[in-house]
Amino acid sequence: MTKFFTEEASDQTVNARMGDTVPARLKTVMEALVRHMHEFVKEVELTQEEWDIGIDFLTKTGQICSGERQEFILLSDVLGVSMLVDAINNRRPTGATENTVFGPFHVANAPIREMGTCISLDGKGDTCLYEGRVIDLHGTPIEGACVDVWSDNAEGFYDVQQPDLQPKWNNRGRFITGSDGVYRFVGIKPVSYPIPDDGPVGQMLGHLGRHPNRPAHMHFMVTAPGHKTIVTHTFVGDDVYLGDDAVFGVKQTLVAPFEHINGETMWRSPFDFVMVAQAE
Amino acid sequence: MTKFFTEEASDQTVNARMGDTVPARLKTVMEALVRHMHEFVKEVELTQEEWDIGIDFLTKTGQICSGERQEFILLSDVLGVSMLVDAINNRRPTGATENTVFGPFHVANAPIREMGTCISLDGKGDTCLYEGRVIDLHGTPIEGACVDVWSDNAEGFYDVQQPDLQPKWNNRGRFITGSDGVYRFVGIKPVSYPIPDDGPVGQMLGHLGRHPNRPAHMHFMVTAPGHKTIVTHTFVGDDVYLGDDAVFGVKQTLVAPFEHINGETMWRSPFDFVMVAQAE
Repeated sequence: MTKFFTEEASDQTVNARMGDTVPARLKTVMEALVRHMHEFVKEVELTQEEWDIGIDFLTKTGQICSGERQEFILLSDVLGVSMLVDAINNRRPTGATENTVFGPFHVANAPIREMGTCISLDGKGDTCLYEGRVIDLHGTPIEGACVDVWSDNAEGFYDVQQPDLQPKWNNRGRFITGSDGVYRFVGIKPVSYPIPDDGPVGQMLGHLGRHPNRPAHMHFMVTAPGHKTIVTHTFVGDDVYLGDDAVFGVKQTLVAPFEHINGETMWRSPFDFVMVAQAE
Repeated sequence: MTKFFTEEASDQTVNARMGDTVPARLKTVMEALVRHMHEFVKEVELTQEEWDIGIDFLTKTGQICSGERQEFILLSDVLGVSMLVDAINNRRPTGATENTVFGPFHVANAPIREMGTCISLDGKGDTCLYEGRVIDLHGTPIEGACVDVWSDNAEGFYDVQQPDLQPKWNNRGRFITGSDGVYRFVGIKPVSYPIPDDGPVGQMLGHLGRHPNRPAHMHFMVTAPGHKTIVTHTFVGDDVYLGDDAVFGVKQTLVAPFEHINGETMWRSPFDFVMVAQAE
């Protein structure tokens, strides 16, 4: 390999330039990043015009970011990268509840509510009873687990998206399990909604013949002392977008039952959360 | 492959989502892009924290871009991607002059000057005579070729970087060859200079143990009817940064002689440009 540029050894020449004192992990990550970028460009023989389009796209994606909007995370989401990173970093034994993407709408320190309380404060939507147990891999109930839940309202917006239109903490709450490991609360049957699609990522989805919608889901973050945190959603199984979530958040095991109770005036969605001990 | 997300088939699930009417080339490029991105993440098992750093880096890179600054092009440059795209799109037969990166400092429509004219208007630096012929692959002189040249001044800045300090068109000019194909002009022996390194890309170079400097070079864009345009530099062979150009622009064949003439009061850099006919 020459120190001068050649098409053949392009990535090796770039990577050989790294200093001797670069931390090993940084070196590993950058070497792989450069190699895969160059392999991509070589495989498709990227044209100058396509490179221009790429530079322009990345620039616009950065420029639309603000305190309230993170278009690069959205890009990572719609290309399945966010889900992949989550999956790699949260591999669990069979039977444990799987993770999915955290999403941008969690708010820390939601009110701790009594079991059975209704978290829907705006009176809109179809009422749904969520209940189940927090257990470990051996089926033992976990006491003192915190079940932090959040969803959109019946119009497809989270409270933080409509601070002037929705009550504070609408469709949010935290529930602490007792010795039986049971959690129970009333919310709404959530509805599907589009991710923000008025920016570069939305335009890209359009060019790729994709829609921006996410299937209806209830967010859960389950924490318990001595156990690995679960960040996940449960999905409404009959949602029209279940098979083509814009951000690929759906896993087979996270599709939850949603069934009528009380003579069809209410829904019920039972789901157990199976936690893995830190040591496991 | 399932329509739901799995770590194993992650890229296939994303790519299967593309619509049936997506143009074939776009489909090819996006499929490869997604596949290589996922392969990279899997190979290094990217952590959530590293992903956060990546999102933050891309966001800052976009946000520093302005009408005068293009940090994503700089990023592409220092990772060797710009050179690779240029190489792929400008493959030429052995013996033809090779391309290198265009760079951000070209200005269209520089003054057309008489052969032999001095383009250095600020009186700074070591004077250098540039001369040679524009010929085709068979050695035949090309008449009517336009040799468009530009360089930094002796302090390492292009005129457009210092509009208040340098004369307009300093170290720039166009020369039209006659029937002998000869070009000849006087400029300065250029000096090395750093690329802008006060942004995210400069920080990245620091973490990678790399410096931001480019070896001294004279820019040339050679155009002629019926021939493929050459966009290139010639490099000063004794430059300390010749072997580690921050943007990998150096190719072996572009290292030009710089030799003393006139009893060491002046330099001379002879270089022939060998063009490829459009049909070849």
